[in-house]
Order: sequence, then C-alpha cells, then structure tokens
Amino acid sequence: MKPEPCDPVPPGGTIGILGGGQLGRMLALAAARLGLKIHVYSDMCDAPAFDVVENRTCAKYDDQQSLAAFAQSVDAITFEFENVPSATLAMLAREKPTYPGAEALALTQDRLAEKDFITGLTIPTTLYAGAQTLPEARDAIVRTGVPAVLKTRRFGYDGKGQWAITGADDLESIFAKLKGAPAIVERLVDFAFECSLIAVRSRNGAFGAYDCPENIHGEHILRRANVPAPLTRGQSQEAKAIAARIAEALDYVGVLAVEFFVTRDGGLLVNEIAPRVHNSGHWTLEACLVSQFEQHIRAVAGWPLGDTARHSNAVMENLIGAEADDWQRLARQPVALHLYGKNEIRPGRKMGHVTRLSPLSETRDPD
Amino acid sequence: MKPEPCDPVPPGGTIGILGGGQLGRMLALAAARLGLKIHVYSDMCDAPAFDVVENRTCAKYDDQQSLAAFAQSVDAITFEFENVPSATLAMLAREKPTYPGAEALALTQDRLAEKDFITGLTIPTTLYAGAQTLPEARDAIVRTGVPAVLKTRRFGYDGKGQWAITGADDLESIFAKLKGAPAIVERLVDFAFECSLIAVRSRNGAFGAYDCPENIHGEHILRRANVPAPLTRGQSQEAKAIAARIAEALDYVGVLAVEFFVTRDGGLLVNEIAPRVHNSGHWTLEACLVSQFEQHIRAVAGWPLGDTARHSNAVMENLIGAEADDWQRLARQPVALHLYGKNEIRPGRKMGHVTRLSPLSETRDPD
Repeated sequence: MKPEPCDPVPPGGTIGILGGGQLGRMLALAAARLGLKIHVYSDMCDAPAFDVVENRTCAKYDDQQSLAAFAQSVDAITFEFENVPSATLAMLAREKPTYPGAEALALTQDRLAEKDFITGLTIPTTLYAGAQTLPEARDAIVRTGVPAVLKTRRFGYDGKGQWAITGADDLESIFAKLKGAPAIVERLVDFAFECSLIAVRSRNGAFGAYDCPENIHGEHILRRANVPAPLTRGQSQEAKAIAARIAEALDYVGVLAVEFFVTRDGGLLVNEIAPRVHNSGHWTLEACLVSQFEQHIRAVAGWPLGDTARHSNAVMENLIGAEADDWQRLARQPVALHLYGKNEIRPGRKMGHVTRLSPLSETRDPD
Repeated sequence: MKPEPCDPVPPGGTIGILGGGQLGRMLALAAARLGLKIHVYSDMCDAPAFDVVENRTCAKYDDQQSLAAFAQSVDAITFEFENVPSATLAMLAREKPTYPGAEALALTQDRLAEKDFITGLTIPTTLYAGAQTLPEARDAIVRTGVPAVLKTRRFGYDGKGQWAITGADDLESIFAKLKGAPAIVERLVDFAFECSLIAVRSRNGAFGAYDCPENIHGEHILRRANVPAPLTRGQSQEAKAIAARIAEALDYVGVLAVEFFVTRDGGLLVNEIAPRVHNSGHWTLEACLVSQFEQHIRAVAGWPLGDTARHSNAVMENLIGAEADDWQRLARQPVALHLYGKNEIRPGRKMGHVTRLSPLSETRDPD
C-alpha cells in the first residue's frame, strides 16, 4: 500500500536513490547521520555510492522487475542525476512517495521546455529559440543574435552537446553534429559572473535557501564555488525569490539548484535549473549545520527542513581527473578533503573536492 | 604479505573496524569522505555501523576463521571499543597493520595497570590502590581515604561495576558483588569540573590535540560536552603535554582520549584514558574541518594528520534512551542532529546527539 505522502519516513526507514555517483554517495552519508538507511539503484556496478549503503541494486533504469523490487524495499524515493528516464520516475511514484516529481524532472530534462517555463513565470533568462530543423536554427540565430550557443535540448552536461555560433559559421556542418537531436539556440551573455542558489522545498511547502556562491568554470566544468558571491542584498533577495517562485510553480520537493548569470548592469538571468543537489552547494557540508545533502533527504523523507544559515565563508574547489592524485599534499592543508571513491581517474572526471573556511563576512573578502 | 606499516592505505583501500556501534559508524562515515572503504566486524548482527559500509562480518571476537578472513580483506585494522580481547588484536596485528597496538589496548583495559602506568610517568592521578581480596580492599581504603569508589579493574563503562565507599559501608557485601573480579579503590576527587582531551598520534609520531571540552555527566553517562572548557591557557597546554607524554610512552597510533579532573586549586588529575574516539569529541564533526573520526582513520591509514583547529565554540548533548523519540522537534532546531540507527531504544542507551555551534571565543561564554 502506498503510504500517505504526509507521513515522514522515521529514523530506521529507507530512502531509495536512483543513481550512484558522488551526489548519491554524499546523500547517503547525510541520510546516515539522521539514522536513515539508503538503497542505491545504479546501472553502474562500481557506483561510488554503493560503498556506503546497506542495500544496492545494479540494473538498467528501465528494468521493470528490478525497479519494482527497489520500490518495494524503500519508504521514499529520489534521484541524484537528472537523466533518469522520467517514465521510470513516474512508475516508481505510483509505488512510493517519489520526490522531486516526474513532471519537474521532465521539465528540467529539456532546455527548451525549461526556458519556456521560466519565461512563463516572467523570470528573466537569456534570449533563446528552439531549433528542430536547419532552417529553424537559422531563424533562431537571427532572433537571438550572436554570439550564441547551439545546444542539444536533452542530455547535455559539463559543456557536452554544445557548439559556439559566432555568425560566420558553417551552420550546416554544426547542425549535422546534432544527428537529428532537438536543439536550442541561446544567446551568449556577457555576464559579470555566475552564481547559483541552492534552495529546498519540503513536502508541506516550506522553503529554504542557502547564500549564493560565485561559480568559476574552466572548460565548462565547475572549478570553484566561492561563498558569498559578491551580490548586493537586493540581488540575493531577488535570487531567493526567483527560486521560490520556480519551486512553488513546480510544486517541487527536495533540493533545487538555480544557476544565474549576473549581468554587468546588475541584472539576474536564470541560466538553468537542476532538480537535485548541486556541485556548487558542496561547501554547505562544512559551512552550515545542515548541508544541501541533508536538506534534500529531509525534504524527501518528509522531515522538517533544517537551518540554511552558514557560520563561515567558504571556498570549494573541485579535484578534476589527476588532481586527486595529489591527496597526500591536500591532506596536509587546512581543508576538508573529500574523495569520491571512484575506481578510475579519467580526464575531466570529478574525483573529489576540497573546502576551505574563513570567518563569516557579509560581503566576500577579496581573493 | 604484511605490508610495511609506513605505506599509507591509498584512497580505495579498506580499513577494518572491530566493533559496530555508533563510534564505528561515525568512523566509517569519516573514512567514506576520504574515499576509503570500511569492513566492520561485530558480534552483533544488527550493529549500527553495518548500515553504512561495503563489507560486514558478524562473528564472535574469538572466531579465528572469521578473524583471518577479515584480516585478509583489509589493508589496516582498528577498533572502536576497548573491550576487544587483546589476544584478538595481537593475532590481527600479525596479519595487517593494526592500530592502536595490542599493548596500549591491554593497558587501558585494566584500571590498575593504567593508573600504575600514568603514575610511572609522574603524571598526577587520583589516589588509588589495587584490591584483589577483601583484606586488600580494607587496606586500599585506608590508603586512599574516603569517600572512595570500588571499581572492577576491567570491563566497566558508564558507571557499571562501580560502588561508592563512604567509610560506613558493609564492605564484605559490596566486595561480594565483584564475584571475584579484580578491583581497584579510587579516592573520590572533589573536583571543580571534568574535561577531556582528544589527541591523535600518527604512525610516524606526529601529534595533534583538540581543545578540551568541559564534560557534564548525569547518572555516570556523559550528557553534555561544552567547548572550550573554562581552562586557563596554562592548563590547556598542560593537558596537551600530558596527553602527548602518554601517547609517546605507549607508542600510540590513533585517537586517544584523556579524561581529567580539574581540582578546585586548578590542578589536573588524569581520571582515565580511552584508546579510541570518544563521546566527548563528537563536537569536532561540526566545529572542525577534520573530526576526531577522520583523524583516527588518517592515523590508522598512515595519512598525514589533519588540522585540529576549531572554527566555532560548540555544545554537544547526548540523546539518551527515549530522548531520541523527540527527533521531529530536534530537527527543527538550529543544531546538527545525529541519530545512530539503533533498532531498539533502551533506557540509558546512547541513541544520538545534537551539536550547537556559536562564534569562536578564547574563553567560553557563560551558560
């Protein structure tokens, strides 16, 4: 029998997580602190999250029998990456309380639907237009202007499935790389910096948000998150209000990350939203009493949300590829060192991160 | 082949932990952050630490075959409670690097040997005398004076195996309760307060120590640890120096807790030492970048020790027995909530703890 979604999962209960990467691993560790058990379901049998949980399923995300057994074994379900098939999530949601919901997931899986949704809430975003065909792509570029980026609507991450459009391009050959995948053209923004807001919404609609970090990328991968971002008080409040409107409109439950471009004239444009815990929120593990991972587990489990206050400023830096080989040197520094237990170091692969704390300030210290 | 003790266990390696209670669970969670795997060996098949680890053995602590297989499966070994048979530890130490060593464990398992050792280092402790027989007990009480406490030399914890001696006692009937177990008489100290020092020593002799909390007990169980304790700078330095001498003399590797009585004239008396992570050090999870649990794992794994600095003041309170039923209220407070995943609530059982942080101060704020 499907439990009432209003019943919290008590200590000793089990949360199921679809996906077994570092986000799932850190979710599992946060759940453990609350006395909750975790069942991880991943299609990779050496998933990092498997090391730290009681129950593991290694199976495809469309394996109905394994999914049914998984649902049977848990009290509530969530996911740690947004490329879970939304049909899988919808099927699981019929069995057990499943958060975030399949609709929110489906929306954030499609860049065009997501941007239409944001725009529909009258929240500013970058200029964009859909591009299903080559002629549509040409039209889209006229509408957005250049420089722009042609992106696949689905399954992109860390800069994969993206091509720069400068205006003097061989659009036909670029478009061919899509291999028929639906696409979107987005105008490149000449922003001052990027920041992100990690928000959380509970089953009963309570909302919380952490302070925004400034995010510094290199080769399309997050390198560093620096908290607090150099936002005015007004900008911070606006970012939280935008995230709250998005979460409310989606009837969202769990942690939601909203990435912003801060323009040179101080405006906030939503770049994209991620229906999950986010790399730019890892600093909350050390700088807050309740991390983004614990907040997500609390929301999914129907618990009260925790305090989002931070007691320190923080700088989080990712360890990418072979940078994690340097663990002995990093272990000597006054940092919190996190290694994700991945068996194989690959270029561009997120292997771990380090967080430094410094005393709390309203505005960020100069670098 | 037994590896050289100087080789660190690299990320991806496995640490074996004897004992599966909350300390083992928190050690396992700390190891996970470093990308290390954990194999827990416990004689209780519902051990809380089993929920959060890759490999589990449920077997008796003298089951040679299970112990051999356990040793085979790990890269280094430690324990989370001091009543591990020291013969078991000695056997395991022949197979794999095992820390702390069997000698340190054996010493701290025997209150009389421990006090003789402390005294031999010319470190002040309470007045004490061994009491193997009833006449010896009478003599011991004459030597220590009253009020005093008669304690079993071995296997006591949280006030179990202890009897008050006021001077007007029926010593014969009290002594009978020992059922022949070797005992010790300790003079009760009229102390100002109790505090403890959580120290760590690495395989290569590096030493670190956290600031001392003041410990408040109720019914012989730690209720609260309040950091920093109201010690003078000189007392803090003395406490660290004492712990360093003890660790050095034992050639100790891992986390060591030294409990002190602070007398009304400002002296420090060693009450007892624990060869493990300690309940009074749980606040290090939130108030430091590297917790006592991670320090212990680092020491056992041959890693560099981490920073012991704290960025905040902290108050840790245990959740005993039915207090953990109150988790929904506690989850709303601005605290770090820890629940240990124990299946059964029993009176006096440590079910979890909460930690509050406040801004750093050299001396403690008044309560």
